[in-house]
Amino acid sequence: MNVPVHVSFVGGAIGPWGIDSISDVVGETLPAAERLIIVESGAPRSGDIAWCLRGVVSNEQYVTSAEQQELVARQPKLGRAQADRAALIPIRKTAAWWALAQDERRAVFEERSKHITVGLKYLPAVARRLHHCRDLGEPFDFLTWFEYAAADAPAFEDLVWTLRQTEEWTYVDREVDIRLSRQTGP
Amino acid sequence: MNVPVHVSFVGGAIGPWGIDSISDVVGETLPAAERLIIVESGAPRSGDIAWCLRGVVSNEQYVTSAEQQELVARQPKLGRAQADRAALIPIRKTAAWWALAQDERRAVFEERSKHITVGLKYLPAVARRLHHCRDLGEPFDFLTWFEYAAADAPAFEDLVWTLRQTEEWTYVDREVDIRLSRQTGP
Repeated sequence: MNVPVHVSFVGGAIGPWGIDSISDVVGETLPAAERLIIVESGAPRSGDIAWCLRGVVSNEQYVTSAEQQELVARQPKLGRAQADRAALIPIRKTAAWWALAQDERRAVFEERSKHITVGLKYLPAVARRLHHCRDLGEPFDFLTWFEYAAADAPAFEDLVWTLRQTEEWTYVDREVDIRLSRQTGP
Repeated sequence: MNVPVHVSFVGGAIGPWGIDSISDVVGETLPAAERLIIVESGAPRSGDIAWCLRGVVSNEQYVTSAEQQELVARQPKLGRAQADRAALIPIRKTAAWWALAQDERRAVFEERSKHITVGLKYLPAVARRLHHCRDLGEPFDFLTWFEYAAADAPAFEDLVWTLRQTEEWTYVDREVDIRLSRQTGP
């Protein structure tokens, strides 16, 4: 992708996703909100907003060429009709993580924590999009958005649980887990 | 560094650096300006501004642990009294570059273009700070700021010339080269 896409996740009174829960996994949580709207490449409307988290869909930081090809072949797009469940998981990593060199971060991320390998196991059930926000002055470093069918919810729980046991996750010092369901009403 | 530092390079009527030249290396150049001021972690004053380029001093993208240790041991800080020459070189890379996986970009950057190895040759003569801006919606992807003594100007020209001959530079589709001298007057 040539131009990075800016995305705002706005928790408040409006939006097609109903917020089922907001759980504090590590560190400070987020205020309660009823609905979520995702705004791409534009400013969110003002109004009844509980929080607004911004990120950028940008270039990959750790994925090798071989991994990228496998991901592209297997990962589904967002917006599938049957995927009426979603999760938004904002995380922040420690200063110790960001002080590591690129090869050290890659070694923790994949060689030791198997982040990409684990994620591939859950394709194509779980669609995923990563948003970078550390350089934007945001309170989190990454926002990951997941979409899946209700029938795949156990698989999604397994994915999240597996990643939280890894060495990579020892570098996470703030994590919030927001679960959502697609709404049909206004 | 824990919190990325936001930096604005403001070309206009004020600032401690006099702009000696603005050269278009590849693609569109920037408007003329007399002076440059560097503003960290704040908004530039309004007024007589010709251009404002923003970037973030963030984590390294390609440097290995061994390279990082060597850089830390050898690279000087900005602001040395004898370093009264500077260069600001904004560059943008092509979509083809950003579509490459991390290992492919690293291979072009260092294994084939020797970007880090070449830079180390000019330490401690040339101080350098890299600012990322692609994810900020800026017109360039990187802003690199260099400081050196007048006596080291030939070495600096050699560094810039060497990098521009590399395979990495075939992915640069916009580059402006701004040269500056520290001013003593207002």
